[in-house]
Amino acid sequence: MKAGMNNLCVVLVAVRNSLNIGAVARAMSNFGALQLRVVNPYEKAWREARSAVGAAELLAHADECATVAQAVADCSLVVGTTAVGNREVRQPLWSLPEAGPAIRKRLETSNVALLFGSEKWGLSNESLSYCHSLLRIPTVEQHRSMNLGQAVAVCLYELGRGEKAQTATRKKRRGFEIGPVGARMDTLERIAEAWLRALEKSGYVAPRGQATAEEKLRRMLRRFALQEGDAEVFLGMVKKVLWKMEEKTEKGRS
Amino acid sequence: MKAGMNNLCVVLVAVRNSLNIGAVARAMSNFGALQLRVVNPYEKAWREARSAVGAAELLAHADECATVAQAVADCSLVVGTTAVGNREVRQPLWSLPEAGPAIRKRLETSNVALLFGSEKWGLSNESLSYCHSLLRIPTVEQHRSMNLGQAVAVCLYELGRGEKAQTATRKKRRGFEIGPVGARMDTLERIAEAWLRALEKSGYVAPRGQATAEEKLRRMLRRFALQEGDAEVFLGMVKKVLWKMEEKTEKGRS
Repeated sequence: MKAGMNNLCVVLVAVRNSLNIGAVARAMSNFGALQLRVVNPYEKAWREARSAVGAAELLAHADECATVAQAVADCSLVVGTTAVGNREVRQPLWSLPEAGPAIRKRLETSNVALLFGSEKWGLSNESLSYCHSLLRIPTVEQHRSMNLGQAVAVCLYELGRGEKAQTATRKKRRGFEIGPVGARMDTLERIAEAWLRALEKSGYVAPRGQATAEEKLRRMLRRFALQEGDAEVFLGMVKKVLWKMEEKTEKGRS
Repeated sequence: MKAGMNNLCVVLVAVRNSLNIGAVARAMSNFGALQLRVVNPYEKAWREARSAVGAAELLAHADECATVAQAVADCSLVVGTTAVGNREVRQPLWSLPEAGPAIRKRLETSNVALLFGSEKWGLSNESLSYCHSLLRIPTVEQHRSMNLGQAVAVCLYELGRGEKAQTATRKKRRGFEIGPVGARMDTLERIAEAWLRALEKSGYVAPRGQATAEEKLRRMLRRFALQEGDAEVFLGMVKKVLWKMEEKTEKGRS
């Protein structure tokens, strides 16, 4: 996670559902955003959310604010989230993927507020008037309204994309690319031999077509891109199958 | 939204909570993913989710499947989601931002299954054995476990990202290369079945160890990265070998 997530303030304005508040807190814990501020919450929902079993510790430390102005006071950038229905938009509107880099940059140096409105109405014009810009999660036209907890999770995921996570996984990736060595050619060759004999025994390969069949088989085994470990296992399987087939033939003969 | 979202199959395995199922359906509507498949859901939760007021139409069209194999049969790529706790990971593991571009690419041409496990246990080893690779949403170390609906929303957001974002991340990608379209899962499944029977006949697999052997075999076949053409040929070979072995057994008996 980016260190900047410490500077992100998730501001819930007039939220009404305790389960949603809990879900927001959980997503914040997941993505390392610790500053939750609630403005004028529906009293009962707020009480329930805080007293819920397993409620994030984060809820205990949340700031309850009387106004949006108070909630965003220490922030240098305020971004409102919207599904942009009919409401006329006065601020610049970005899609989340577009906005991500700029917000992440600002988070490195100062507090940024991300505002979410009530489940029913979204952010009021009054709340929107505090926003430098608006942000929209790209959705299907006909289904714009997202669940609050999900919208928060998606935003935090985008804002948490960052250098550190990249570096952490970069190592893993490199290991994966370089690490596993492909199977030795002689192992593959032994598989091809044993497998071909099994195919002959089974009648899959006619004795005449053997040269072609062998080449085809070898090329196919190459395409399987076997790793040495798997190749050994596979060879063991093929040999065992072949052994059984030959044993039966022997018996058949005797 | 990208057209490819039509090809995304969200597969919920053994999910227990009706609210979560509803949340998943809502996120899918938001991001234009319409194929929901549930495997072995907790009966009551599934009933409740479908009968809930305002339940997404999507739930009415969801497929209920008896097994993971059935749910992923028409998919050429199966990606499991995990919080990667203690479980030992055997498949390649990618972070969502890394995996996104490659999965989007595959979605352009064929069905991709994204598997989510139960709220409590995640995906079982048996379910994981169907996965080509695993995916992790980058979270804070100490708070890895995400709410199901939120995890689905985050994944769909990433997979729904449009062209522009793709180009930006393409440079970083490289590692998550899933190559040309792989074989359909039902072809692989038929190979696994026939091969397993041949192994049993040969005595390679003891009847007791069958479940483990089956999972191991399935994982190995996944790693082979078979293309559909090769898979069909390979299946034909294995079947023929098996047929011969069984024929011999019959003769031995008579």
